[in-house]
Amino acid sequence: MFQTAELGQQVSKAEYKKRELILRQDLLALQQRLRSDGKFPVILDFAGVRGAGKGTSTNLLNKWMDARWIVTQAYNEPSDEEAERPVFWRYWRNMPCKGQIGIYLSGRYSKPLLDYVYGKTNDAQFTRELKRINNFEKALTDDGAMVLKFWMHISQDVQQDRLELLENDPLRSWRLSPDDWKHWEMYDRFIEAAEKIISQTNTGHAPWEIIEGEDFYYRSLRVGEILLERLERHLISEELRQKYLAEFRKKMREEHALPVNGKHTTVMDKLDLSLCIGKKKFRNELAIGQARLATLHQQAVQKKLSTILVFEGPDAGGKGGAIRQITEALDARNYKVYPFAAPTDVEHSHHYLWRFWNCIQRSGRMTIFDRSWYGRVLVERVENFAGDDEWKRAFSEINDFEEQLIEHGIVLHKFWLHISKDEQLRRFKAREETPHKRWKLCDEDWRNREKWDEYSAAVHEMIEKTSVQKSPWILVENECKRYGRIKVLHSVCDALEEALDTD
Amino acid sequence: MFQTAELGQQVSKAEYKKRELILRQDLLALQQRLRSDGKFPVILDFAGVRGAGKGTSTNLLNKWMDARWIVTQAYNEPSDEEAERPVFWRYWRNMPCKGQIGIYLSGRYSKPLLDYVYGKTNDAQFTRELKRINNFEKALTDDGAMVLKFWMHISQDVQQDRLELLENDPLRSWRLSPDDWKHWEMYDRFIEAAEKIISQTNTGHAPWEIIEGEDFYYRSLRVGEILLERLERHLISEELRQKYLAEFRKKMREEHALPVNGKHTTVMDKLDLSLCIGKKKFRNELAIGQARLATLHQQAVQKKLSTILVFEGPDAGGKGGAIRQITEALDARNYKVYPFAAPTDVEHSHHYLWRFWNCIQRSGRMTIFDRSWYGRVLVERVENFAGDDEWKRAFSEINDFEEQLIEHGIVLHKFWLHISKDEQLRRFKAREETPHKRWKLCDEDWRNREKWDEYSAAVHEMIEKTSVQKSPWILVENECKRYGRIKVLHSVCDALEEALDTD
Repeated sequence: MFQTAELGQQVSKAEYKKRELILRQDLLALQQRLRSDGKFPVILDFAGVRGAGKGTSTNLLNKWMDARWIVTQAYNEPSDEEAERPVFWRYWRNMPCKGQIGIYLSGRYSKPLLDYVYGKTNDAQFTRELKRINNFEKALTDDGAMVLKFWMHISQDVQQDRLELLENDPLRSWRLSPDDWKHWEMYDRFIEAAEKIISQTNTGHAPWEIIEGEDFYYRSLRVGEILLERLERHLISEELRQKYLAEFRKKMREEHALPVNGKHTTVMDKLDLSLCIGKKKFRNELAIGQARLATLHQQAVQKKLSTILVFEGPDAGGKGGAIRQITEALDARNYKVYPFAAPTDVEHSHHYLWRFWNCIQRSGRMTIFDRSWYGRVLVERVENFAGDDEWKRAFSEINDFEEQLIEHGIVLHKFWLHISKDEQLRRFKAREETPHKRWKLCDEDWRNREKWDEYSAAVHEMIEKTSVQKSPWILVENECKRYGRIKVLHSVCDALEEALDTD
Repeated sequence: MFQTAELGQQVSKAEYKKRELILRQDLLALQQRLRSDGKFPVILDFAGVRGAGKGTSTNLLNKWMDARWIVTQAYNEPSDEEAERPVFWRYWRNMPCKGQIGIYLSGRYSKPLLDYVYGKTNDAQFTRELKRINNFEKALTDDGAMVLKFWMHISQDVQQDRLELLENDPLRSWRLSPDDWKHWEMYDRFIEAAEKIISQTNTGHAPWEIIEGEDFYYRSLRVGEILLERLERHLISEELRQKYLAEFRKKMREEHALPVNGKHTTVMDKLDLSLCIGKKKFRNELAIGQARLATLHQQAVQKKLSTILVFEGPDAGGKGGAIRQITEALDARNYKVYPFAAPTDVEHSHHYLWRFWNCIQRSGRMTIFDRSWYGRVLVERVENFAGDDEWKRAFSEINDFEEQLIEHGIVLHKFWLHISKDEQLRRFKAREETPHKRWKLCDEDWRNREKWDEYSAAVHEMIEKTSVQKSPWILVENECKRYGRIKVLHSVCDALEEALDTD
């Protein structure tokens, strides 16, 4: 694999100067086109052997193009902030938006590589980590992103020369890290791991390019010219793909005759909505439940156990009230509620999961989502904001996302607060009649109500595809709000208790 | 996940009769369209709980549609024939061709599921096996195939009823296997594993559908109607996708200005083509080498160690001769040589890897490929028979394929027989002048020669992306055929010796 990058490829300085001039102009022009027409982000990764030009290439790209639209990010050991969140949080956080270029050094491949080289992971575990990376890259490229990965290579002999030069240069020897010689000795292990990485993650949509890194002029032109070629290609293909998707989605809406045969029972139809408790009992249970929650959450804070609660439900389903019962029992420093509506402009220029990744807090906190990433398979599906290709693949993207939360030790609990269609009407009318509740009701609520059955089918499928043992959907009979709130409260407490016990 | 399939969904017999009639007509009509317009195969999988209707649904689909164009395949424990080959061989072998429907029972998901349930594999290993399945499904769907997977579900109580009914019915009790009750007791483990399978392999391109299996009428209609909806959707999307790909490929050829800056040294340029040995030494070495090979291969046959040799090289590069030196040393019962040219009609109606999977032999044999799957990234790339999206993703498909061969214990050795452009001309001319060699030369050879540089670039990238430590490309300096042949011979012997030693 790497013998192709040990050929002593060279370019003379004179030729470099000549070609660099043209390359810079072309790259700049393409970057402009990316900013104006490009409806996608560009993600460039540099990985490879120490001393093969990862840093200098990054600097050159920043110099050749307009650096204001480039985000460069180098990763070290995770900071406190980062270590307290799932591994991929930092990569999501630094994602370029559409039209921008992100350059990553020692990014998502670095830790899996080192862990494997040092024998901390075996083959199967390594493959599993690479699969997570594959999922990440696939989610981005399915969404239109361009991903291009450079593996910078030099032979072990060349690396030795580089390290010795550094060592003997009093002005630059500070650059040498204690690991450098150690890793040089482990060169073969690194190459073996690199081979596995490249074979398993060199996909059509997120390819690796191996670059011979010995000669500065050669490798710099090679990186730039490959980027140029790929970017031009992606601008063409993405424009065509968008056209095709629009045509497909239109055709699906118009021509495609969905067989809507018979009425399917949904999982919500089986709920006993007559479940109810009286006011007195409610006040009593509430006091007990909130006290229980307060104590458990105090313990969770101390043990740095994070909790994420997701609330979904029809309009006027009682999400706000249920959330209030919980937050009343907590210390405001230790929780956060994020209400979600339609994405903002900035959010819209990222992958749909981006805004949710950004809400993941440090450990020990409780994060409450009033509507969530499930909008992708609910409102966006029903209202055709997402094509059926998009919401169909969202189930696996969401499962992958939640798996990462759970693997990180976060307690994830998802509530569907259910009411009947009649009860919704009663609540809408009550809102209309009560002055201080009127703001809660808008025309959209009435429009959504007309699509009750479509929403029900979407909710049913959402539960089918995303309710797993480790993060189940809790269906809450919320026709009687008092009953629902107590159920939510105790359900959260039970989950916390279990997690604290097994901790 | 499965609570959505325990709702007691039912359809009356009268309604079933009515809807079945329409469904059958619609399915038949779509099957006709698939055969005439559909440029893709349909792959249907049935998995799930024992007694939930996998078998009956399969029979119904065969009854409803024209069974002549449906291939139904149920898998048991691997046969001798199958066990001697990599696991996926049997799934490739039974692949439907374009326009046909393949239905699979207890297919590729069955063994990973059972191994996990019985604790033979851990989480990471299970994920790894599911990743292999993902790769398989992705390769097929990237190529246009429709993949749809049904998970047939019933609750543990319903399953108990089913098994008891069977047990107490003298005419049907033979259907009960000793494992049935054992698995019933392990119901929860199965559900846990099923959840993992569905979360990790429910992708946008190869989705799972969970079907409530209790009521025959309900589940049968549900399976049929989902198939109808998906098939119609795929016929629309695949037609549009083909149009888009054609447009994209055309645009790439015409507009896309590849930066062909400077001349790149290829890995072949570094070969010392002056290496040569004299006739006498050759005869001597040949005798020694062939004797060595004969002995080693005898041992390999006894130890059931399989070998696959791949030969690639420019026209007149000497593949035929090199292969002959090897086969002369072997017993004809134990080896096979497969020469490959352009695909036949039948081969063309399958995924490009299909014809090579079909050549994998039982264990202990040597299989020699005179040209191979690498045609995808060589001739098909250079001659534009494959779009650049196709050959670019082929590297990972090929790596995945070869990884399976190696994991199965096969010795895989790949030779690139190299000659200079001048030497090729000399050999072409010699062929023209020698009557008994004239048949070897055709117009195409002269045309290929004109694209020498493009082929060189393709070969270089092929070696870069697919030469890995466990199955490296051996570059053979074949300017002097005698030298090349001896190098090939000893290289094969060394590989066999190493594999026999570590066995």
